[in-house]
Amino acid sequence: MAPGFSPDAYGLRLAQIQARMARVGIAALLLTTEADVRYFTGYLTRFWESPTRPWYLVVPASGDPIAVIPSIGAALMQTTWIADIRTWRAPDYHDDGVTLLADTLTEVVPKGEKIAVPSGNGTSLRMPLLDWDRLQKQVKDRYFTNDRGVMCAQRMVKSDTEIEKIAASCAVASRAFARVPDIAAAGTPLAEVFRRFQMLCLEEGADWVPYLAGGAGQGGYADVISPASDTPLATGDVLMLDTGLVCDGYFCDFDRNYSVGPPSQDTKIAHAKLIEATQAAFDIARPGARASDLFFAMDHIVTGGQGGSDAGRLGHGLGMQLTEPPSLIATDDTVLEPGMVLTLEPGIDTVGGRIMVHEENIVIRDSGAQWLSLPSGPDMMELK
Amino acid sequence: MAPGFSPDAYGLRLAQIQARMARVGIAALLLTTEADVRYFTGYLTRFWESPTRPWYLVVPASGDPIAVIPSIGAALMQTTWIADIRTWRAPDYHDDGVTLLADTLTEVVPKGEKIAVPSGNGTSLRMPLLDWDRLQKQVKDRYFTNDRGVMCAQRMVKSDTEIEKIAASCAVASRAFARVPDIAAAGTPLAEVFRRFQMLCLEEGADWVPYLAGGAGQGGYADVISPASDTPLATGDVLMLDTGLVCDGYFCDFDRNYSVGPPSQDTKIAHAKLIEATQAAFDIARPGARASDLFFAMDHIVTGGQGGSDAGRLGHGLGMQLTEPPSLIATDDTVLEPGMVLTLEPGIDTVGGRIMVHEENIVIRDSGAQWLSLPSGPDMMELK
Repeated sequence: MAPGFSPDAYGLRLAQIQARMARVGIAALLLTTEADVRYFTGYLTRFWESPTRPWYLVVPASGDPIAVIPSIGAALMQTTWIADIRTWRAPDYHDDGVTLLADTLTEVVPKGEKIAVPSGNGTSLRMPLLDWDRLQKQVKDRYFTNDRGVMCAQRMVKSDTEIEKIAASCAVASRAFARVPDIAAAGTPLAEVFRRFQMLCLEEGADWVPYLAGGAGQGGYADVISPASDTPLATGDVLMLDTGLVCDGYFCDFDRNYSVGPPSQDTKIAHAKLIEATQAAFDIARPGARASDLFFAMDHIVTGGQGGSDAGRLGHGLGMQLTEPPSLIATDDTVLEPGMVLTLEPGIDTVGGRIMVHEENIVIRDSGAQWLSLPSGPDMMELK
Repeated sequence: MAPGFSPDAYGLRLAQIQARMARVGIAALLLTTEADVRYFTGYLTRFWESPTRPWYLVVPASGDPIAVIPSIGAALMQTTWIADIRTWRAPDYHDDGVTLLADTLTEVVPKGEKIAVPSGNGTSLRMPLLDWDRLQKQVKDRYFTNDRGVMCAQRMVKSDTEIEKIAASCAVASRAFARVPDIAAAGTPLAEVFRRFQMLCLEEGADWVPYLAGGAGQGGYADVISPASDTPLATGDVLMLDTGLVCDGYFCDFDRNYSVGPPSQDTKIAHAKLIEATQAAFDIARPGARASDLFFAMDHIVTGGQGGSDAGRLGHGLGMQLTEPPSLIATDDTVLEPGMVLTLEPGIDTVGGRIMVHEENIVIRDSGAQWLSLPSGPDMMELK
């Protein structure tokens, strides 16, 4: 898999977003988050882990994007297709890029027109609030508004190259999950399982492992987001590992359940039900179906149609981020299109307030859904 | 090292922040980021990697904090000392926790008083802007303001237990760096070095490796934030690896330079100068010195006192985040206090527009600075 994307790919994304912007009357998009900035530039760095510096990308109604960034990022940004790179030496307590950004926006946005910022569910503005206030004051005679969901809509449908990268991440995780019996058995502390599993992911080809969560307990676990404790695995435990690893900037996000020793009858039935629910959603996932249809198909099987659980949803989009729109919930009416990548993630109550959750990754194609993760069968993998 | 902190530790943090809030007239703090929420609760999860759901913590002027969070996090939050946990089923497109949060703020904040949000350098508000607008409208007769830096000041001085955790991370990284000659030599692709180095960090005891950057090139590298390419290491290259790994939620952040084959005379001199600069800052780092004093001591040696470079700073705080205040820049007048943890990170221009950067971690004690990373000597480590 060749790293990154061709300049043509960025040109296409730009043309598409500018068409969307024109339809809703936006003169410029102001982007501040890792995924949004990378989507139009190819600027890939783990440096966003540092919260100190803001990074800005201005996408005008016509013409190429302009990067307004700290000078520490100039050398890397110059390796991308972006030609107009404006820098300041950050951190600058007096003016941390605000005037440079305000001048750029004033230059590309005509008086009286709109500068839009992604503002809906799942977004945030990655800049200090005081700087946001200053920016709004410094940019005179233009208006800041929300982006009416144009970035969300744009990123939700993936290109073939994006899907290849997600598939590569899924393949790495599938291989790592298959090797879990080598690193985990009754007596292994959960923290050691987490550590060794991340090593397997790297060994199998992950660039890094931003996300790992999981749980272990008799017949299920309390939640799916906890870090590991030092408690050793015990016979009768169900171990769940859920990873979002990254290859070339694209995530997978799925989990596997393992039985420590032979599974109980209850555990067997619960796992088989999760697989049945996943398959039910897979079977109806095709262009024209709605996100909510997939939710109802799974919810019918795992809760008997109660309308969901505390997890809040039964799957979601993924790509440059671990979780992206849409959400598989009763109220999400997103119509599926070819190129959308989704997780199917049904959960089920087991015993004593515990749960089990299963997750697979799929892509929507013209003719229906296609697995990206190597799908689990109804029988659980066993650990010694 | 025992995981987490005692309930007393959280009680002390709460008393300290409430004293700070009283001094500046804040009736409640609204916190939205991983580090701020975890600081007062102990809520440790990698689930923040998912951008979908907002998480809120309200710290009132008196009484215990209140968690206002998605129900998927309830089980984990119940394992912390926090007793008042209010949940909603997220994502909810109609009202994603805004009314629950508004009601909570209205309950704990008297009319006419201030609700403060961290708003200065290095902060951001982790919630959708549309929800922020709704919240400000729903909370009537109270005022949202910036926090006047109280969270920044509170977190900048670490407790002994926090310092122990940072020291544990530093020790893991020091051991991993010592083993780099086992995994890297002329001919090894840089991406393979990155992958293997992360495995070493995990094997040596890291819980995870949120940050790794680096570079390699003849006599230096272009920047310090790039991801790895597949280019193989070559004799004469300087390889730099910079990691922020985590043990029990606390970061280290330092780097090491390696010479592939014997270093050139220029490379030797550059590296020795970086060590000299680091030592100069270490020698004056004590209670009463200013962040800017450390900057000037290093800048004098690496640039002859030109006042900095495009990197923007020569070190910073660290702890629950990879980078925290203060910044070692000319304009940061923060007075050092016992318990502050800092990186010293001088950089130097080498040949052909390339640079070298060295970094160590220290803690300020009553009597002066103490190394947390195992400090490098002037001689570079060599790879075959």
